[in-house]
Order: sequence, then structure tokens, then C-alpha cells
Amino acid sequence: MLLTILYIIGITAEAMTGALAAGKKKMDWFGVMLVASATAIGGGTVRDILLGHYPVGWVKNPQFLVITCIAGVLTTWIGPWVAKNHRFFVFLDAIGLIVFSIIGSQVALDMGLHPLICVVSAIVTGVFGGLLRDLFCRQMPMVLHKELYASISLLSAVLYIGLLHFGVDELITTIATIVIGFSARMAAVKFGWCLPVFHLDITEDQPESVKK
Amino acid sequence: MLLTILYIIGITAEAMTGALAAGKKKMDWFGVMLVASATAIGGGTVRDILLGHYPVGWVKNPQFLVITCIAGVLTTWIGPWVAKNHRFFVFLDAIGLIVFSIIGSQVALDMGLHPLICVVSAIVTGVFGGLLRDLFCRQMPMVLHKELYASISLLSAVLYIGLLHFGVDELITTIATIVIGFSARMAAVKFGWCLPVFHLDITEDQPESVKK
Amino acid sequence: MLLTILYIIGITAEAMTGALAAGKKKMDWFGVMLVASATAIGGGTVRDILLGHYPVGWVKNPQFLVITCIAGVLTTWIGPWVAKNHRFFVFLDAIGLIVFSIIGSQVALDMGLHPLICVVSAIVTGVFGGLLRDLFCRQMPMVLHKELYASISLLSAVLYIGLLHFGVDELITTIATIVIGFSARMAAVKFGWCLPVFHLDITEDQPESVKK
Repeated sequence: MLLTILYIIGITAEAMTGALAAGKKKMDWFGVMLVASATAIGGGTVRDILLGHYPVGWVKNPQFLVITCIAGVLTTWIGPWVAKNHRFFVFLDAIGLIVFSIIGSQVALDMGLHPLICVVSAIVTGVFGGLLRDLFCRQMPMVLHKELYASISLLSAVLYIGLLHFGVDELITTIATIVIGFSARMAAVKFGWCLPVFHLDITEDQPESVKK
Repeated sequence: MLLTILYIIGITAEAMTGALAAGKKKMDWFGVMLVASATAIGGGTVRDILLGHYPVGWVKNPQFLVITCIAGVLTTWIGPWVAKNHRFFVFLDAIGLIVFSIIGSQVALDMGLHPLICVVSAIVTGVFGGLLRDLFCRQMPMVLHKELYASISLLSAVLYIGLLHFGVDELITTIATIVIGFSARMAAVKFGWCLPVFHLDITEDQPESVKK
Repeated sequence: MLLTILYIIGITAEAMTGALAAGKKKMDWFGVMLVASATAIGGGTVRDILLGHYPVGWVKNPQFLVITCIAGVLTTWIGPWVAKNHRFFVFLDAIGLIVFSIIGSQVALDMGLHPLICVVSAIVTGVFGGLLRDLFCRQMPMVLHKELYASISLLSAVLYIGLLHFGVDELITTIATIVIGFSARMAAVKFGWCLPVFHLDITEDQPESVKK
């Protein structure tokens, strides 16, 4: 119940960041709705496809698709306001990230999968929406070289799965994961925590066979 | 039967537009066949994967894959001719769009899915082939900011599903959808009908957290 | 058994080429692990999804995912060494290509699919990892305009399926396919064998409707 409300907040926020990216590329309304929906529910869709978890979430609950399309189109009116209030969106996006990670873990746990796959399921749910948005909008996936994001998803999943494993009550586990994951994400943004970057500087032309 | 013939015309035309895009990127024959096939049958493939509708179309009917590969390679010879006669291809492509939309609706209807998902199924079938082509060829997806295309797919699906819902005969429904959808698409091309474009002009560097 | 050892060599080599590509784009560790894993096991994943062959390989055997992540991160230390010894990697990559093609054929054969689909399954397994890497790193898919690669996968698949079809022992078939496929790939690299390239040179702006 709590999770559903937070999930709706999460997909709405994600849909808006998707619509903003589409607006920067001058897409039409269809493009805005497509990118908004892919950003918001694309992570869960990729997870369901990878795990063979059918029917995919929005096929079962089309109302989530309606929410993301409306959020996308609304953003075309309030775009500049959204862009100005980005701090508020970082806040909502962080909630979405943790909620997506919890849901992703839960889906894989319910399927009885290996704990490592449950963590992967959480990360895919949390991160792939943003990756799809950046693929559609042809921008370098930001999640791959900015402050901690996938790592927060990993942390949340490990925390959630670990607490459940040690018999902690599900509601307490959920709240603890949200509070800790959210705090970690906000701290990462505030202090600019990043993963180490791998920068391979090869000036001469790469041999073609390595590139393949 | 009629639908099968029109479907073959549609995938042939789509495969050719895919091959042309590959040729502009100087791909080899394998690339041409890959992009041609992805353009022609990628939409139906994405639909089947999203809906969990296995086996995927071309796995069940490999001959369609043969057609798209041949159409792709043929286009390497007649490429300049095709590029010159683009009006003819707009014509064939419009037929393909409507037929793909009808088939997409029908697949989802047969699975007993929500009408909204049937419409989404139609749009995915009609539009994602072109999106895949543009992803492979690294060009901005044209479907996202050109004259009405996905909207025609939407219109055709609503018409088809609606007529069937009100008990109209399937053959009449199919023909009516093709005639009206096709006319709407040709009118959109002729008069340059477009969806409103969302143009978010942010000159200052976007805050990194909104981009994520 | 032999196939498993060669498979592990193959995914390790592929993961390293993925990590190198990520390093050239200055991705962080998460990006490196993502691109390394997508390159190494993305082909098999796409194959499993297209064929509806669940559970996907690494969901069933998470240890392969661990290998590709470790190989990716290790490459961040030994990157310049890897880039210098690219000949060695062409060697490992060629083994991977043939082994992936054999596994891809075998999966489709086990599902009782049409021989043509078995060949497609082999090519998807062998080639799509590299395609995913290039999509994530936003570089033109190299497999689409470099020396024979997908064609070697095709050759290996036809050889493997053909020998099995004519009743040749499975071990002998596997070894013969590896030896011949590997030799063909190394010859293609050495002599620069390429497929014909389709180069469509259209100077005037393409009519928008063909681009769609």
C-alpha cells in the first residue's frame, strides 16, 4: 500500500525527467509519451523480460501507463518550471530509485531466484529506465558516469534482501530500506560521491579487431 | 488472406527503407540484412516479447525472415532507384503501417488483453521497426518528430477494435480500417500534419541530477 | 565440458573488450561491469528472449555474471596492457565467437526449431553482444562494417548443424566446427576479408517520408 503510493510518485517523477529529455530533443507528443513511459516503467519491463516474468507490469495494470503518458504530456506545459525546481525532482527521483529497487528485489524473491539475481533484478528495475531514456534521446547514459546511482540500488537491494533473510518483518524492512537508501542517495548527490572512473586514453587508432 | 498479402508488401517495403538507411551508413551485407529485418519485423518482435506472445512471429514462420533479407540485399542494387521513387515507398509504407497496426491489435485481442494494451500493441507493431532501424543506424528516431505516424497507428487500432467491439464483420472491419487509416496517413504526408512539438530550450547546462 | 571451458574463455575475452570500450568513454565501475557483461552474455540473453528460452542463461547460472563483472573490473587495471596485446584478444575473441555460435545452434536445435532459425540463433548469440556494447558506448556497430564476423558465425552454425544432421558424432562435430570456424576467422582477420559494402551516396536531403 505504502509501496504503491511511493511507486506512483516514483513513476510520475521518472516520466517527467523522460519528458524533459524528449523536450530537449524537440520530440512531438508521441515521442514525449514514449520516452516518459520508457523512463518510468522501462526498467521494470526490461526486468520482467529478462526474468521471463509475464505478464509485464503495465500489461497487467494499464493504469500505470496512463499515468506516465499524462505526466509526460503535462510536463510539456510545466517544463521550464520543472527544470527550475530540479532539487525537488532529485528528491522524488531518489524515492523512485529505492522503491523500484525494492520492487525489483521482491519480484525476483517471489520467483525463488538466486540472491545475486535478486540484486541484479533490483538494479535493472532502478536503472534501466534512465538508460532507455538516454538511448532514445541519443545522449550518453548519464547513469554510467555520474554520482552513485546504481550503487544505491545495489545497497538498497542487499539491505532489503538481507533483512528479510534474517527474519525482520516486511513492513519494517521496507521502511528501513527506504530511509537508509534515500539518505544514501541524497548524501551521494550532496557530497558528489562517485564510483572510480575507468579512463582508457588511447591516442593511436585502436586496432580494428579489438573493436571488432 | 488479404492481410497476409498486404503484410508481405508491408515488410518488403519496410525492409527496403531499412536497407537504404544501412546503405547511407556504409554497412556491409550482413548489416543491410540485419537492419532490413529489424525494420520490417522488429516491431512485431518487440510486441511479442512485451506481451510474452511466444513463439515470436518469424521464429514460427521463418519465410518472413527470408523475404526481408532478400529485400534488403536487392535494395543494394536498386538503392538509387528506390531513393528516387520515394513517393511509391511512402505508399507501400503506409499500407504496411496500417496492416501492422491491425495485426498488432488482433494479437492482443486474441490474448484477451485490456483494450488500451491492444492499442499499445498496435502502435508498437507499427512503429518500433522504424525505431530499431534508427537506433542501429544511430540517427535520431524520425518517428518522434515528423508528420503523423504513430497517431495513424493509434487511429487504426481504435477504429479496428471499436468496429469489432460493436459486432461489425471482421472482413468489413479490416477493409474499413485499411481504407480510412491509409487515407489518413496519405493526407498527413500531403498536408504535413504533425503533432505539437515539445521544445524545451534550456541554454544553461542542465543540473546533473535531473539528467541523472 | 570442453565447451564450458571455451565458453568461460570466450565470455572473459568479450567482457574485456567491453570494458575497454567503456574505458574509452570514461564510464565508472558500474558502467564498466554493465558493458562488460552485456558484451559477454548479451548475445545469449537476446537469443533466449527472442526464442522464449527461459530462464535466461545467467539467471540460471549467476556465476557467469560474476566472471564477466570481475573480468570487467580487472580490465580497468590491465587496460593499457590489453590494448597493446590486441592480437592475443583477437585470438580469444575468435574462440568465443565460434563457441557462442555452437551454443546458439544447440539451444535452438534442442527446442526443435527450423534449421534456419537455428542459424539465426547462432548468429544472434555470436554477434549481439558486440552490438549491445556499441549501442551502450554510442559507437557505430563495428560488426556491421568490418572484416567477416557474422559470416563466420553463419559458417560455423551451418557446419555444426549439417554435421549433426548427417549423423556425425557430437564431439567430433564440435571439434571440427571449432577448428574450421576459428581458422576461417583468423584468415579473415589476416587477409582482411570483408563482405561487400552497400554505400548509398545521396547528397540531396533525403525526402522525409522515406526516412519516416
